[in-house]
Amino acid sequence: MTEASAAPDLIRADGRTVDQLREVTIERGWSEHAEGSALISFGRTKVLCTASFTNGVPRWMSGKGKGWITAEYSMLPRATNTRNDRESVKGRIGGRTHEISRLIGRSLRAVVDMKGLGENTIQIDCDVLQADGGTRTAAITGAYVALADAIEWAREQKFIGQRAKPLIDTVSAVSVGIIDGTPMLDLAYVEDVRAETDMNVVATGRGLFVEVQGTAEGAPFDRRELDSLLDLALAGTTDLTRIQLAALAASSEAAGA
Amino acid sequence: MTEASAAPDLIRADGRTVDQLREVTIERGWSEHAEGSALISFGRTKVLCTASFTNGVPRWMSGKGKGWITAEYSMLPRATNTRNDRESVKGRIGGRTHEISRLIGRSLRAVVDMKGLGENTIQIDCDVLQADGGTRTAAITGAYVALADAIEWAREQKFIGQRAKPLIDTVSAVSVGIIDGTPMLDLAYVEDVRAETDMNVVATGRGLFVEVQGTAEGAPFDRRELDSLLDLALAGTTDLTRIQLAALAASSEAAGA
Amino acid sequence: MTEASAAPDLIRADGRTVDQLREVTIERGWSEHAEGSALISFGRTKVLCTASFTNGVPRWMSGKGKGWITAEYSMLPRATNTRNDRESVKGRIGGRTHEISRLIGRSLRAVVDMKGLGENTIQIDCDVLQADGGTRTAAITGAYVALADAIEWAREQKFIGQRAKPLIDTVSAVSVGIIDGTPMLDLAYVEDVRAETDMNVVATGRGLFVEVQGTAEGAPFDRRELDSLLDLALAGTTDLTRIQLAALAASSEAAGA
Amino acid sequence: MTEASAAPDLIRADGRTVDQLREVTIERGWSEHAEGSALISFGRTKVLCTASFTNGVPRWMSGKGKGWITAEYSMLPRATNTRNDRESVKGRIGGRTHEISRLIGRSLRAVVDMKGLGENTIQIDCDVLQADGGTRTAAITGAYVALADAIEWAREQKFIGQRAKPLIDTVSAVSVGIIDGTPMLDLAYVEDVRAETDMNVVATGRGLFVEVQGTAEGAPFDRRELDSLLDLALAGTTDLTRIQLAALAASSEAAGA
Amino acid sequence: MTEASAAPDLIRADGRTVDQLREVTIERGWSEHAEGSALISFGRTKVLCTASFTNGVPRWMSGKGKGWITAEYSMLPRATNTRNDRESVKGRIGGRTHEISRLIGRSLRAVVDMKGLGENTIQIDCDVLQADGGTRTAAITGAYVALADAIEWAREQKFIGQRAKPLIDTVSAVSVGIIDGTPMLDLAYVEDVRAETDMNVVATGRGLFVEVQGTAEGAPFDRRELDSLLDLALAGTTDLTRIQLAALAASSEAAGA
Amino acid sequence: MTEASAAPDLIRADGRTVDQLREVTIERGWSEHAEGSALISFGRTKVLCTASFTNGVPRWMSGKGKGWITAEYSMLPRATNTRNDRESVKGRIGGRTHEISRLIGRSLRAVVDMKGLGENTIQIDCDVLQADGGTRTAAITGAYVALADAIEWAREQKFIGQRAKPLIDTVSAVSVGIIDGTPMLDLAYVEDVRAETDMNVVATGRGLFVEVQGTAEGAPFDRRELDSLLDLALAGTTDLTRIQLAALAASSEAAGA
Repeated sequence: MTEASAAPDLIRADGRTVDQLREVTIERGWSEHAEGSALISFGRTKVLCTASFTNGVPRWMSGKGKGWITAEYSMLPRATNTRNDRESVKGRIGGRTHEISRLIGRSLRAVVDMKGLGENTIQIDCDVLQADGGTRTAAITGAYVALADAIEWAREQKFIGQRAKPLIDTVSAVSVGIIDGTPMLDLAYVEDVRAETDMNVVATGRGLFVEVQGTAEGAPFDRRELDSLLDLALAGTTDLTRIQLAALAASSEAAGA
Repeated sequence: MTEASAAPDLIRADGRTVDQLREVTIERGWSEHAEGSALISFGRTKVLCTASFTNGVPRWMSGKGKGWITAEYSMLPRATNTRNDRESVKGRIGGRTHEISRLIGRSLRAVVDMKGLGENTIQIDCDVLQADGGTRTAAITGAYVALADAIEWAREQKFIGQRAKPLIDTVSAVSVGIIDGTPMLDLAYVEDVRAETDMNVVATGRGLFVEVQGTAEGAPFDRRELDSLLDLALAGTTDLTRIQLAALAASSEAAGA
Repeated sequence: MTEASAAPDLIRADGRTVDQLREVTIERGWSEHAEGSALISFGRTKVLCTASFTNGVPRWMSGKGKGWITAEYSMLPRATNTRNDRESVKGRIGGRTHEISRLIGRSLRAVVDMKGLGENTIQIDCDVLQADGGTRTAAITGAYVALADAIEWAREQKFIGQRAKPLIDTVSAVSVGIIDGTPMLDLAYVEDVRAETDMNVVATGRGLFVEVQGTAEGAPFDRRELDSLLDLALAGTTDLTRIQLAALAASSEAAGA
Repeated sequence: MTEASAAPDLIRADGRTVDQLREVTIERGWSEHAEGSALISFGRTKVLCTASFTNGVPRWMSGKGKGWITAEYSMLPRATNTRNDRESVKGRIGGRTHEISRLIGRSLRAVVDMKGLGENTIQIDCDVLQADGGTRTAAITGAYVALADAIEWAREQKFIGQRAKPLIDTVSAVSVGIIDGTPMLDLAYVEDVRAETDMNVVATGRGLFVEVQGTAEGAPFDRRELDSLLDLALAGTTDLTRIQLAALAASSEAAGA
Repeated sequence: MTEASAAPDLIRADGRTVDQLREVTIERGWSEHAEGSALISFGRTKVLCTASFTNGVPRWMSGKGKGWITAEYSMLPRATNTRNDRESVKGRIGGRTHEISRLIGRSLRAVVDMKGLGENTIQIDCDVLQADGGTRTAAITGAYVALADAIEWAREQKFIGQRAKPLIDTVSAVSVGIIDGTPMLDLAYVEDVRAETDMNVVATGRGLFVEVQGTAEGAPFDRRELDSLLDLALAGTTDLTRIQLAALAASSEAAGA
Repeated sequence: MTEASAAPDLIRADGRTVDQLREVTIERGWSEHAEGSALISFGRTKVLCTASFTNGVPRWMSGKGKGWITAEYSMLPRATNTRNDRESVKGRIGGRTHEISRLIGRSLRAVVDMKGLGENTIQIDCDVLQADGGTRTAAITGAYVALADAIEWAREQKFIGQRAKPLIDTVSAVSVGIIDGTPMLDLAYVEDVRAETDMNVVATGRGLFVEVQGTAEGAPFDRRELDSLLDLALAGTTDLTRIQLAALAASSEAAGA
């Protein structure tokens, strides 16, 4: 691809190459209360992800032998450079918040076998403590780790059988975009506002797509640009999968309620 | 592509081939009040699209010489097979409504030169009178026609200069999905609920992407499936562009406030 | 009465005599989903009325052998000459909407024997697609047709017994008003804003009153004016009853979900 | 009239004849803060009415040399026999409250010359402290007294000219209804729930109608019944006018902020 | 204490000494509907307190043999010198209202043995009809009287056993504050706005504290000032207790639903 | 005092003596966006406090040469042992949240000279990331540090004059309570739920009271108990003041936007 092949030498404002993630860290078990939790950082973006486990499902799902996973996303008022009013004070949730909450929930449900989860509910909360672009992709990536720990906790508590395998794959997410004609991976905020095209890709550890959301912020994009963005994104989620697995492989002392 | 190439002979429940749109009709100038309007049908899905023109822009945009376009989507309570409570009665707008309203607004703005529009505001309203799958894609496709008529009206009223070209392209949208392994175009409701993967594609008349939103409803999808869905979608939006242009070419008696 | 007797020769802006309805059309079975539906027009005023049937009643009514009918009225944002903000966006329903919703519900319940309806619920929705005065009276008149079809549907589905007669009469509504001292029937918007007195009358097919709501918009009115308005209104509802019955007499192919 | 003429001998549960008001008292100047106020009782129904005067009008009315009057009605949670949840706690105002607030506002505006009021705003508040039927009619009747005092206060403060006559008439209201076939005046709660037809009539001191709102609660009503109700109501408002004027004639020491 | 000892000769704007309550009156049984009620005045501050008794408790408390008491506080819009918008119209309850409602509820619960109350609920409503400072303390003091009468009513109705003693003490409240360095009891509005320190004290008839809420409005206060305020407050609640008991000792004819 | 003097030997569940704070840490400058920020821990209670500086004041305060400080408090849904629904999702802010937000704002304003601050606004946000009792006292204590840094930032940016001294004292807060008759300092959650009396004390660095809020959760308390709680609290705030000053004395590299 012309653009992508021309770009390897280009160095970004923060010193990264075009196909490089920001530093990603996952502090597993950050919360002492939640059944699973992770404080994830994509560079300066920090999201606290918790997974709250409840035995049982909402009444309308009862009796089907299946579980339920749902998610809520929110941002602290001063997570961003300029303070935003709280949605609790405004009395209503904005469209962007709704959209991202729904995306997180769908992404996690895509890698869970609801029969394997049994009649249990897991509520995911992703609260952005500091934002610098990519909050939704960091949220999905961190929420998977919190989810995995909550499921492990439930197994230890015998809410889930020893042989059940609710997790059928891992899931992570990354943003990609085209800036000045060059496709780039994992956009920081200053890059995001300049991108002509912005895409969020959610993929499983096996490299399958769960969500592809591409938006022309400036000019519409053609098929070749789309292809190069998808290539970059899949390389990124491959890296993220490795980081998730490493975090989950660390001794269980680090995690748990 | 294996799936797509195997499918041409397959006939759907409503008699269509896999790459065939439902019957699309556009009743331009349906509203006697709005500056532009269109009642669009994608089969049994019917959406009333109006474009309300206001001279001037919100105060925070004032003085920049640029216009503004925004959109709201809603569904009548009995547009669907089972009645839904009104969002006005619930006192809050749901996530799905927010998401679609934002999508429509972004899609239209992608083909408008805001400098060309001048300091004017166009408010798009898309109200689903009857739903049978594809309401957001019908809404975008119909809203473009209403928008074009409202801009023409504004030109006649001298709110927009005679030489200004606010519309830089046309825009339409269509859904595609994979059902039992077969990619199909323009899903009706009964198909939509069965789709493993569901994608909405917004594209310009020149064949460039404005939005690509693919979601794995059942199993995650691979790159080849994604490619075949994009092929189908672009063929669909090419057809829709032709239908839009035909509607707009009809005598102006049919349209206008 | 002086005014009324003096007026027969007066011709209104739209060519009608003072005691003449606008053209009224009823498109029965407009909705493919609802158990009963009608798209009614009073001139340029167009209201989509649907009747949604549910077997059973709210819990607080259960066990009394009686049914329940309720109604909601709303207007599309650009149904009027100037766009109105959506009540869903404002997060609250306005007083006018509440008032009309309650009026429609009371009007329909007045002609239904709730024992005959059995423990079933019918939800009426009246959505104004285009407004030109008289939206509430068109809504009541159209809603009756939708209601009648929903009851017929329920009878066919055996939710209501073959011998039950839930409908004890028909019901329709019309506005009347005094303009420049002259009582007139079925006011269009331009007439309505000029009326000194405005009255909405809901009456049964047998000519009995269900609601009489007269309001002095300009100067208070005397007993003689009130009497002449009631005369005009009853003549109007007699015409509307005939039109309703003709629509319901048309072949059942035209109607039903 | 048959019904009314047959009834004079009938004595109601509380000892009244069919055409007799309950004891009506008006405690003028009840509030030490409001520019005008009245605590009015219709038997056990007690409504505190205040009129708050503000120099100036809302911005959208500014510069037209006209004033504005608006009203809000509410009920204390335990004004009734069974406690009702507060609308502030529910977060939304019910349809009945909206309807009555609008009725009070229209009724008062009907007897005010807005040019005479000048660019001033009067906000009426009617809070039901105890309810026993007829709260809206007591509210209108008491609000007129509060309004008259607020206008007098404004004249003394020179906000209204000495020769201006903003009040062009008085206004009062009463309920009438048909119980067991007998028309009765000023229904108490136990009568109201049994009434087949219920009507609220707002009339000026000169005997002209401002509002006529008749509702068939049980069976629809005919023209003769309507006529007898209107007769009763006008007799009632004549009595109320006399009581209002007597209260306003009392020494000004009793009233005022 | 220096300040307090220096002040006895000081006479306030309304003629009181620094340690004197305003005139306090309690009109017991004001409401004909509520199981207990009192219209209490602290000078020009007037609060209508009702106690609504319900047999049974909310579901989440059921089966524990204990009762529940909760309270709501509100102010009529023109209770104050300048009109305040209704919280029902604003669609949300303000922080101050919430705070006072919670304080009233806690204060009453502190003197009730919930086992003695049995599985019954008492809802307290305190509506400020006229405000002149001290509305929350008047509300608590009046609410106790309403509560006592509601409990007596429930005993007569056999909802509470003859030997049960749900009330283990009485409770009243008063404000104190420091103005120009002088501690004063029961502040009227003009005093309250000038106070450097403002304290509300809720105490039982036996002289024990239920709530102590002191706030530095101007300058922070020292321990000696705090002590002198507490002395004044306890003297005030001793007086209020005497007034409450006198009201409750009056013949039962005055009270009750 | 008997209780307090008897208690020194008593060791609490977490190993503390009765007059000992939990470990308190202040991570200054935690946020890279806010003008001032602190992540404060009182044991397992963690609160992120940010101070957002804006040049200018709300319009109603403009032209008085004075600044404004306001605060909002909130808790993440899984900050506690059991998940709480988000207030943004419920669409309304609860009474407890309102109460604490107001307390934080008043506490900070008590140590700020608003003339010294000039026409500038500082918005404090306290978000509880993890809760284990004492969240409001930790919030006040941490918010002071964030406030001090924001003021310093504003001075460097020349929004505040070099000689202005907006901060006239420091402020911190601590909880105290009586458990099994023993007064204790800085209650953890398990202690808080068992406390008979619970008090929050806000005091300045000079040892003056800003707020004293004592509540009898179980039995009412007497004057001696109140005195011993105040002694404990002032000792606690003396310790907290020292910790705040130490944090602020650390090199400015640790802090700032």
